[in-house]
Amino acid sequence: MFSFRVIDPPNVEKLLDMKQVIELVERAYLLKAQKEAAVFPMVFHEFSPGKADMDIKSGHLVGADIFGLKLVSWFGDNPAKQLPPLVGFVLVLDSRTGVPIGMMGGEAITLMRTGAAGGIGAKYLARKESEHLLIVGTGHLAPYLIMSTLMLMDHIKKVTVYNHHSLEKARSFCSTISAILKEKFLAPYRDNPVLFERYASRIEQVEFAATDQIQKATGEADIIITATPSRQPIIQKEWVRPGTHFSCIGADLEGKQEIDERIFASARVFVDDVDQAVQVGETEIPIKTGVIERDNIVAEIGSVMLGTTAGRLSDDDITIFDSTGIALQDLITADYILKQAEAKGIGIVANL
Amino acid sequence: MFSFRVIDPPNVEKLLDMKQVIELVERAYLLKAQKEAAVFPMVFHEFSPGKADMDIKSGHLVGADIFGLKLVSWFGDNPAKQLPPLVGFVLVLDSRTGVPIGMMGGEAITLMRTGAAGGIGAKYLARKESEHLLIVGTGHLAPYLIMSTLMLMDHIKKVTVYNHHSLEKARSFCSTISAILKEKFLAPYRDNPVLFERYASRIEQVEFAATDQIQKATGEADIIITATPSRQPIIQKEWVRPGTHFSCIGADLEGKQEIDERIFASARVFVDDVDQAVQVGETEIPIKTGVIERDNIVAEIGSVMLGTTAGRLSDDDITIFDSTGIALQDLITADYILKQAEAKGIGIVANL
Repeated sequence: MFSFRVIDPPNVEKLLDMKQVIELVERAYLLKAQKEAAVFPMVFHEFSPGKADMDIKSGHLVGADIFGLKLVSWFGDNPAKQLPPLVGFVLVLDSRTGVPIGMMGGEAITLMRTGAAGGIGAKYLARKESEHLLIVGTGHLAPYLIMSTLMLMDHIKKVTVYNHHSLEKARSFCSTISAILKEKFLAPYRDNPVLFERYASRIEQVEFAATDQIQKATGEADIIITATPSRQPIIQKEWVRPGTHFSCIGADLEGKQEIDERIFASARVFVDDVDQAVQVGETEIPIKTGVIERDNIVAEIGSVMLGTTAGRLSDDDITIFDSTGIALQDLITADYILKQAEAKGIGIVANL
Repeated sequence: MFSFRVIDPPNVEKLLDMKQVIELVERAYLLKAQKEAAVFPMVFHEFSPGKADMDIKSGHLVGADIFGLKLVSWFGDNPAKQLPPLVGFVLVLDSRTGVPIGMMGGEAITLMRTGAAGGIGAKYLARKESEHLLIVGTGHLAPYLIMSTLMLMDHIKKVTVYNHHSLEKARSFCSTISAILKEKFLAPYRDNPVLFERYASRIEQVEFAATDQIQKATGEADIIITATPSRQPIIQKEWVRPGTHFSCIGADLEGKQEIDERIFASARVFVDDVDQAVQVGETEIPIKTGVIERDNIVAEIGSVMLGTTAGRLSDDDITIFDSTGIALQDLITADYILKQAEAKGIGIVANL
């Protein structure tokens, strides 16, 4: 029999902070680049096409001695049943013995690690002095993407917010986002006045502005992060100025697309996982339509961190980070939570 | 948040009985034949070739409104660490909402459902009046395979036991097997004198005999069940008499083989899952060596239960059931355990 720890959602949230998650996700990318990690093939099943599906992403972090999986279900009819449409969990095992260690719901981890990925893309690929961030999409992920980018890019002064369907939603988002960022992300730093003050002032000093002029906003942005469920490009190639960095977050299923595939033709393209990006990421359409080939992907982002591949070559480069989300991000974060929980006696321990 | 139930190993064992598991496994096969079930692609990863691996088998039982997965790790060095070499769990979710329901260790379920499969193969494919069972292999699975076959085949009078490496092990197995069967399988029927008496007398009336004469034993058997980790055929084609039924249980990985591939040429071959049998089952080698083609597999066993495919056509047919083990067997059994546990208030309930 083995002790197996289950952490409830409030404790998962309590044990995570964005600075830590950024470090964890960077470590996962780095281990992958060092061949100290393996992404296993994804299992995908549609229960009812366009209405309900599930996927199982799994992998092995050799360098962290863990393996495991994340299962995420999407049931479009759930809200009518007072249930969330996305439900999932992350489960971690010891890769030296195969023994299960513990599990937890996947929601908070997914939001945090995906948010971290958007900022990490900017950190390694955007121009260091980038001042202007454009966020396309005002859903659950947007605050997480903004926070990680503010933490990682010290010169950001302005965040323009665009919702493809509603200026009103973008305005409403801007009116509450400062308060939301403070509430969601600052609590873990209450005991660390230096960090608390640093992040609080980042949130306070930045200007948030809603727009419905996506062409103009694109032309003014240094960094563009897209996080929508779109299946049609929202941003056209002609609008993009030299030097722009894209972190494309939304595309994680076949057919999803947020930016004009022609942007890829002249951009330096980086991904989190080549196989997955080609299959389901923003990179899928440009390859399927022949705009680029698989070999035109410069590298996985971990290679840039590791220093084996150059990221941006000049201030005029257009760079793209296609983040599809890989199990390694979830596993390393879940493992961190489980270690913290064990040390603090948090969670329910069952025998398995 | 969702309630998620974790059942510990003693309770899993307490909530299972072989008669019930046979019914559950039959139902899983039947649902599959009725296209009320889907087996998802298997994920397999070798941590260290020949020393440590893991697989994730998953699937959907439409008819039972559940889906889920079973993860099994094999770490050959575990015994030196006072850990079992095989470690795993089964996790069940609701296929109407995607909500996780519960989980438990996989050991007892695997033994019970695999044992049940061997007997079910005999029930649907062996001659009804079969009297003589040959068990090849004296490992953990053997008592489970014997018990299910005794429960399902009323005329069995003799069980011959063969261990490919040691007559001594076969003898020792025979000297204790009656007591082991009673201890392992009768407890759940204490409140049901009719069943208790029926199964107790089946165990008492059967003769167990060890042998090291595998050629002779093969020629005398009506039913042969193989459950070894062999990678070389143990039973040759020339030894097999007409009318014999094989339930091949051991082969579940590429390269495993227990019976001469030439036996397949003139046999009626049934499997639990065609894709998996061709990939990793006893059927793999006969197809790879060209003895049969994939189309020579008569059907999945569920079709025989459903009546859409005939099993045995004559008393002289040699029949083979290649059981590789499918997630549906585990899921339906785990779901039964979780429903029983909920009704009885057993297990630990965590928030997920």
